[in-house]
Amino acid sequence: MSFSPPFESMQYLMRHAVDLDRILASGDYTDVSDDLIGDILGGAAQFASDIMAPLNRTGDQNPAQIEDGNVIASPGFQELYQSWVESGWQSLAIGKSHGGMGLPQIVNAAAAEMFYGANMAFGLCPMLTSSAVKAISAHGSDELKSVYLDKMVTGEWSGAMDLTEPQAGSDLGPVRTRAVDNGDGTYALTGQKIYITWGDHDCADNIVHLVLARLPHAPAGSKGISLFLCPKYLVNEDGSPGVRNSFKPIGLEHKLGINGSPTCVMEFDGATGWLVGLENRGLACMFTMMNEARLFVGVQGVAIGERAYQQALQYAHDRVQGRVIDGEAEAPIIGHPDVRRMLLEMKTRLMGARAICMATAAAGDLGDYTREALLTPIAKAYGSDVGVETTSIGVQIHGGMGFVEETGAAQHYRDSRIAPIYEGTNGIQAIDLVVRKLRRDGGEGMRVLVAEIDAVPDSVRAVGTPDMSLQAPALAKGVEVLKTATDIILNASEKDALTGATPYLRLCGDVISGVLLIKSAVNGFRARDPHAPNMLALAAYHTAAILPHAEAQLDLIRAGASAVFDYPVDRLADL
Amino acid sequence: MSFSPPFESMQYLMRHAVDLDRILASGDYTDVSDDLIGDILGGAAQFASDIMAPLNRTGDQNPAQIEDGNVIASPGFQELYQSWVESGWQSLAIGKSHGGMGLPQIVNAAAAEMFYGANMAFGLCPMLTSSAVKAISAHGSDELKSVYLDKMVTGEWSGAMDLTEPQAGSDLGPVRTRAVDNGDGTYALTGQKIYITWGDHDCADNIVHLVLARLPHAPAGSKGISLFLCPKYLVNEDGSPGVRNSFKPIGLEHKLGINGSPTCVMEFDGATGWLVGLENRGLACMFTMMNEARLFVGVQGVAIGERAYQQALQYAHDRVQGRVIDGEAEAPIIGHPDVRRMLLEMKTRLMGARAICMATAAAGDLGDYTREALLTPIAKAYGSDVGVETTSIGVQIHGGMGFVEETGAAQHYRDSRIAPIYEGTNGIQAIDLVVRKLRRDGGEGMRVLVAEIDAVPDSVRAVGTPDMSLQAPALAKGVEVLKTATDIILNASEKDALTGATPYLRLCGDVISGVLLIKSAVNGFRARDPHAPNMLALAAYHTAAILPHAEAQLDLIRAGASAVFDYPVDRLADL
Repeated sequence: MSFSPPFESMQYLMRHAVDLDRILASGDYTDVSDDLIGDILGGAAQFASDIMAPLNRTGDQNPAQIEDGNVIASPGFQELYQSWVESGWQSLAIGKSHGGMGLPQIVNAAAAEMFYGANMAFGLCPMLTSSAVKAISAHGSDELKSVYLDKMVTGEWSGAMDLTEPQAGSDLGPVRTRAVDNGDGTYALTGQKIYITWGDHDCADNIVHLVLARLPHAPAGSKGISLFLCPKYLVNEDGSPGVRNSFKPIGLEHKLGINGSPTCVMEFDGATGWLVGLENRGLACMFTMMNEARLFVGVQGVAIGERAYQQALQYAHDRVQGRVIDGEAEAPIIGHPDVRRMLLEMKTRLMGARAICMATAAAGDLGDYTREALLTPIAKAYGSDVGVETTSIGVQIHGGMGFVEETGAAQHYRDSRIAPIYEGTNGIQAIDLVVRKLRRDGGEGMRVLVAEIDAVPDSVRAVGTPDMSLQAPALAKGVEVLKTATDIILNASEKDALTGATPYLRLCGDVISGVLLIKSAVNGFRARDPHAPNMLALAAYHTAAILPHAEAQLDLIRAGASAVFDYPVDRLADL
Repeated sequence: MSFSPPFESMQYLMRHAVDLDRILASGDYTDVSDDLIGDILGGAAQFASDIMAPLNRTGDQNPAQIEDGNVIASPGFQELYQSWVESGWQSLAIGKSHGGMGLPQIVNAAAAEMFYGANMAFGLCPMLTSSAVKAISAHGSDELKSVYLDKMVTGEWSGAMDLTEPQAGSDLGPVRTRAVDNGDGTYALTGQKIYITWGDHDCADNIVHLVLARLPHAPAGSKGISLFLCPKYLVNEDGSPGVRNSFKPIGLEHKLGINGSPTCVMEFDGATGWLVGLENRGLACMFTMMNEARLFVGVQGVAIGERAYQQALQYAHDRVQGRVIDGEAEAPIIGHPDVRRMLLEMKTRLMGARAICMATAAAGDLGDYTREALLTPIAKAYGSDVGVETTSIGVQIHGGMGFVEETGAAQHYRDSRIAPIYEGTNGIQAIDLVVRKLRRDGGEGMRVLVAEIDAVPDSVRAVGTPDMSLQAPALAKGVEVLKTATDIILNASEKDALTGATPYLRLCGDVISGVLLIKSAVNGFRARDPHAPNMLALAAYHTAAILPHAEAQLDLIRAGASAVFDYPVDRLADL
């Protein structure tokens, strides 16, 4: 099944949903032109379609294997990785100061969607390398930077994040892996880490692990965790990989999806590591990359959903079954209203979630870090939920063919399911949104956002033509609902607020995605963009089918903790 | 992971959501006592938990194999099937006139939920046998009945349904398998059938296939299809299985889930068959069983969802992570508001969908076939959708452990995904609801149902205590929404109605499930049932979290076809 990234959609959103011109005019990106972005994204689309996409199913059907403490990646992945490095894509998402291309984050996000859509399991490896580069750049010593960064920016060496342990997942406080000072500037790490994505493989010449561990006498809990760099191969004086370090993969998880991505259990047996950042401040170092990683997981949801959409669309064009309502002969199922509805539902949800991811990236590009922080958990959770929902519709459009693995629709459904879980479950995102991003600043960041989108319905009315007389009031209602919900959460007890956190995040996603689609339709009409009528059709579907569900979240947000704690815990098993 | 069917919940719904006493007092079931039902369901629960459930994962991890034209079932399934037959469970769901136990359908539905929850892949085999028994009983000649029925009612011989062909799925009109009259009362069948569930296996002594095929000179399309009985082994004079018939499995599908159920490609090569019913009336014969089969697929959704719920509940009790809001020490995640919310969401959705399935069964038991026909597509689609949604939440509660196959949470997620697809996709159910069940009788059946549930808010107010001052108006609003939506669909053009069909079905499911939960809470309080307060807590959650989404469906139902056909079909690929 071929895959072709939605290039026009991305460019449209960059121009009309977020303000690419303003980003390019800002200090950081004055040497980046619109044309350059077009060229880069065109190249990324081609690499994604031609080189990455064909191996997506190979990875799924032939997961990595472990042999004698070494992971052998899926067939063809070694060559694919080589092409990746040679084509220079690794440096795309890395800032200039770290030796990367220094493009705006919205461009990175668009390219990332292309790569993940083509081959999400593979794409995780470069993502982890980028994150590790950022952490080392921000917190590593000059020596660590000089030894590791150059090789990682090209992708010759890859990165891995070793956080989770069996008893320490969502809460990293109970991390037990021990680090002991060797007295020579290095530390010896001992312990077991699980769920280490691309923790070992045979694609890169070295793998640079960032490992959370606890020093002797460190405070208990999350304030006693430090971050260490452990390379798979210790680095020789000349910069080449030397002897193997004392840690290795001892198992691979058998997973629901992303089978092309080896998920390792790693055993550290006195492994040599170097401290990154300050002692006991390891979690803070990790959080440096967290926001970006979370945005990119939201992008993954959109990416897999987009791939599932393209496949379902093709199937709907090809599959002949039944008579369409105004025809006599048997016809492709795309003519059936319910199939068309499913396609529009997928397309609109994906476009809305994509717009939220872009708005998050754009906030960072414009230096509006409050906005970026506020939108990040929404982008991560909403984007990943939309991924699961749309891949499920993709299966459904295929009918029985969707349930057999042969077509590949089921792979997208399986692959997408990880995104609501990793990089902080979507429940954690909702808590982050409500507690850290909303209540901590008394709702100031959200008030600014709401004030801004509050003007959108008026701008819709001002356009006059085409007729948006249905969309403007629906949107105004949605914004009103967002304000009401925000007030409820701000004034609620913490327990009530936490109970309403997920419905609130969903409400935010439904309203903000609708606002962005309508805004981009309006801006498109103003700029006489030929695609504007199509964006308006999506926005119209959104206001009819998606936006009304925002209001439906209010009752539970209002009800708070009693709605779920009134049911006695000891009777949950039956009645 | 152990499984224990929700016995109390089922009994509560039978008493207070549907009227078991009235069913037992009706002519057909006067010899069935409440105690007998309790004994039977108790036995079914035990068989499900002890015998069926332990092999659920075995079947998933060790799918059936095909060797030399014979399917070898998953390890242990042969012995399990033997126990099934010896314990007499096959006859449970079969009417007295056909040699079965003749229990009300609500009891069958409850037992079926237990069996499917324990091992859905296995449970499909007995389901198909029951369906085949019904078709042969209703349409077969006396000779066919005497040769096949006795052995099938015990389960010694199993049944299979051979409908689908590559070009004939949702629309069976294009079926191409040919049947030629042999001139001796038999026919020779030639062609290929796909997606044949339990089409071959080594558990039963014979397998009785009901096959759709086309006679020479039959009219084109669905009015030229006849039904034939083809046994795997031709039956000797003494009733024993004789020589192998000329058809065989030539492949097994590699599926997303229900791996313990062999899904066969069957090749008929002049196979000997007997006509069932009249020539060219094969589809009508199939429809005899369709309603029941559809109800049972809805039950499957609830069953798998329930199993996923139990597993998630256990995990939430066991998994220690983070501090709960009013505690200092690390605590099980069940104390976290968002985890509790997810559990309540699962439990309430499942209870609501279960109530709809029971109401469907009860309508049949009471001879209200209009009601049964109206509720069947809702039970099938809503039940199966709820299955997918709740198993997804089950994965989410497990966090990273939900994505690895080891825990089993992912299996439920995979298994559940078939139910919205087979026995008529949920899109087909929505069309059936809107076109055949609603518009064909001008909405009369729905009007009667709505008039009945319209009285529920008043009965809630009349109870007085406990306080349902929040639920009564929410419910009244829900019923109003159902009326409004019904009027829109009745007055819409066919294309508009078909576009709104799925949202309308969902709306019906959300409202009717809410009505049934509240009604059962009210009835429970009146009967001083000790579980009534818990049912009220679920009903309260439903009115806060689920019912409000019904109203959110109205805008799309109102918008109709333009909402999805306005977007140009040739721009669906990008923008």
